[in-house]
Amino acid sequence: MAKEKNTIPYKIYLTEEELPTRYYDVRADMKTKPAPLLNPKTLEPMTADELETVFCKELVKQELNTSKRYIDIPTEIRDFYKMYRPAPLVRAYCLEEKLDTPAKIYYKFEGNNTSGSHKLNSAIAQAYYAKKEGLKGVTTETGAGQWGTALSMACSYFDLDCNVYMVKVSYEQKPFRREVMRTYGANVTPSPSMTTEIGKTINAKFPQTTGSLGCAISEAVEVATKTAGYRYVLGSVLNQVALHQSIIGLETKKALEKYDIEPDIIIGCAGGGSNLAGLIAPFAGEKLRGEKNYKILAVEPASCPSLTRGKYAYDYCDTGMVCPLAKMYTLGSQFIPSASHAGGLRFHGMSPIISELYEQGIIDAVTYEQTEIFDAAEKFARCEGILPAPESSHAIKAAADEALRCKETGEEKTIVFGLTGTGYFDLKAYEQFNNGTMSDYIPTDEEIQKGLDALPVV
Amino acid sequence: MAKEKNTIPYKIYLTEEELPTRYYDVRADMKTKPAPLLNPKTLEPMTADELETVFCKELVKQELNTSKRYIDIPTEIRDFYKMYRPAPLVRAYCLEEKLDTPAKIYYKFEGNNTSGSHKLNSAIAQAYYAKKEGLKGVTTETGAGQWGTALSMACSYFDLDCNVYMVKVSYEQKPFRREVMRTYGANVTPSPSMTTEIGKTINAKFPQTTGSLGCAISEAVEVATKTAGYRYVLGSVLNQVALHQSIIGLETKKALEKYDIEPDIIIGCAGGGSNLAGLIAPFAGEKLRGEKNYKILAVEPASCPSLTRGKYAYDYCDTGMVCPLAKMYTLGSQFIPSASHAGGLRFHGMSPIISELYEQGIIDAVTYEQTEIFDAAEKFARCEGILPAPESSHAIKAAADEALRCKETGEEKTIVFGLTGTGYFDLKAYEQFNNGTMSDYIPTDEEIQKGLDALPVV
Repeated sequence: MAKEKNTIPYKIYLTEEELPTRYYDVRADMKTKPAPLLNPKTLEPMTADELETVFCKELVKQELNTSKRYIDIPTEIRDFYKMYRPAPLVRAYCLEEKLDTPAKIYYKFEGNNTSGSHKLNSAIAQAYYAKKEGLKGVTTETGAGQWGTALSMACSYFDLDCNVYMVKVSYEQKPFRREVMRTYGANVTPSPSMTTEIGKTINAKFPQTTGSLGCAISEAVEVATKTAGYRYVLGSVLNQVALHQSIIGLETKKALEKYDIEPDIIIGCAGGGSNLAGLIAPFAGEKLRGEKNYKILAVEPASCPSLTRGKYAYDYCDTGMVCPLAKMYTLGSQFIPSASHAGGLRFHGMSPIISELYEQGIIDAVTYEQTEIFDAAEKFARCEGILPAPESSHAIKAAADEALRCKETGEEKTIVFGLTGTGYFDLKAYEQFNNGTMSDYIPTDEEIQKGLDALPVV
Repeated sequence: MAKEKNTIPYKIYLTEEELPTRYYDVRADMKTKPAPLLNPKTLEPMTADELETVFCKELVKQELNTSKRYIDIPTEIRDFYKMYRPAPLVRAYCLEEKLDTPAKIYYKFEGNNTSGSHKLNSAIAQAYYAKKEGLKGVTTETGAGQWGTALSMACSYFDLDCNVYMVKVSYEQKPFRREVMRTYGANVTPSPSMTTEIGKTINAKFPQTTGSLGCAISEAVEVATKTAGYRYVLGSVLNQVALHQSIIGLETKKALEKYDIEPDIIIGCAGGGSNLAGLIAPFAGEKLRGEKNYKILAVEPASCPSLTRGKYAYDYCDTGMVCPLAKMYTLGSQFIPSASHAGGLRFHGMSPIISELYEQGIIDAVTYEQTEIFDAAEKFARCEGILPAPESSHAIKAAADEALRCKETGEEKTIVFGLTGTGYFDLKAYEQFNNGTMSDYIPTDEEIQKGLDALPVV
């Protein structure tokens, strides 16, 4: 199928002058706002004062904002963005040809930085505000390690102390991620550790434990709240993270407009929701204001289907049930998704913003199983060159399916999807796929119900 | 030190229209040409016919060219280049600030592709010519795996069979590289294998061997010459590879000219010489024609100093002594460099083009030890974000030293260096560096002399 390769370049790069100077907060355009976080003890909305014991002041302001549409991006953050942004908007000419589709496929590639993903967009913002507030350092948790890597990079740039609690099993099985963080100067501690009260308690109770994200969160929060000059930072779910990630969508929109391209479908993978919220923000805004009617698609793993099989309810964000409650689509904080290689999508809940947009019908959602995701990933790698992260490959699969539908109908739709990162640290998973030993798991209705039955009564 | 951040962007990207359409062959501007390859049996110059038993016809033509200045880049190759090129020319504002230098530092970053290095530039060209000639597939060897990865990507794009002989020790110790290649559809065989005569012989003689690059080359060449529809391809040393890599230098030059930047010093790491030859090609050309007088610097590891401590003489390219002889700076084909993490720089010789340019005084050379390279790499990563490959970090170290000299003298020199790739698959080495267990080794004069004493008499 001959395409107009001369009119649209393979990669659309914005110039540095064209880079967004303001974040966009989609909540400003939502008539019904996402519900507030609740204090887990009082079940009352968290106040700014309460949040400031955990987060920086400026970030608390952003967390609680619901009406301000644009927030200026400080020069220092914009300077850092210039080191790895703009991320290219790539026309997938080769994929289109392989699929033999009349559809036009574009992807926003966020993997061209050492963290290997979009996580750096929020990490640098959170590190900046911490530095500006005069803090000494920050604490966080990391599972697979992408968020920890991004935060390490951001902290080394602003000369901030960075303490990462890494789930013990990942610390041992993913030594490379750990070494990237150490190279950027972070202190990486396997969790549960003996450096916190909660860590000591868990180690005493379960001496053989290999840790969990819930426990690592609890350790990081404990250290941040008990140590002068430290705050806790988080890489997904929160409103502030969605705000920072809006840089993805704003750049995408400007790149499309630069070449008069009108998208029909916008697709992103959905775990905690940070990438999806960022990518779709300006498009969802137009849809909320009634200006446009894009199809916006969240793609979940079948093994952890919070939007498609979960319940819209208040729930704990962590398995330890010490963090605030958020109203979100959730499978229940006690739901344990089966081991899957898309570690970044194994969260039981979904960002409150994405949840509310889904509830309002602005977003649709689909699920795919692991093996079909890796099949799509491999096909994509072989023609587009980039080896995608398993998380990102959910969006690839959905985009390819939309393009194949266009082949059936003959429609020349324009599809945009988010390629959040690279799979260079996921090669154990690719090995399983290459060897034919990868399996799928869809939770039964009973398992789902069990998770939902344990939801807190609010 | 306040710099004019507004006049020069952080990253200079050429548009797709500005991408080079022709390779540049620096040999056309050399009065004394590099010496021809010799047949290892007759010691006579290799003829086109002889070379065509191993290489594609078009590549043989390129290998033997000495007078044609420009070679058109076929559209199919240019289309592939558009998927990951132009590589950005990055202004290292943050590094300059950390070094507190009046120098201006730029680096050409070749790591934004899944092979993680510049190797893809030549892999795609070699795969294209193989496909065009109607071949079924190609064979090659790989050590650390960057070249094998690049070739796998190129072959999957052109639907060519790709057989990679991977040094057994790397096959076992670098399973991730192996899996990237398999994901792109390559057949990866640990070498020595039982699929070739030479492999069987070596396995019988040395049943415990973990292989060597020399042996892997011999296996790959044997399969290529004995199997109908197959040819052998190589990722460095050869003239054809230097030609394809000129895309690096041509893009760099155009990017500099776009902003009226006049470089003073051009720096690249030097192993087999492919990256260096490509980066400096157009600059060396100007110097050869007497139009400019840049300082051009090759940076070698102290553990394998072919330019600085080797001899300019005919030598075998492989330890097995079955390949043609090349006139080059060499430590002798029997010289075994100490284990070093810059695997891509552990070649006993140097590309004939680089060797002759060095002999003519167009290029200077320096050496550094491993630990000081990693120290420079870490400092670079922490301010510029990118985690560099150990090979590339040789150029970083030399550039930083030049910049520090400018600080002493107050000169505002413009330094350009090649950042050939990322260190995502070198984290074992970073771990050693982070743990303080990395050591250096400089060969003694006796060791060097022993290698030189074994040079063939031609």
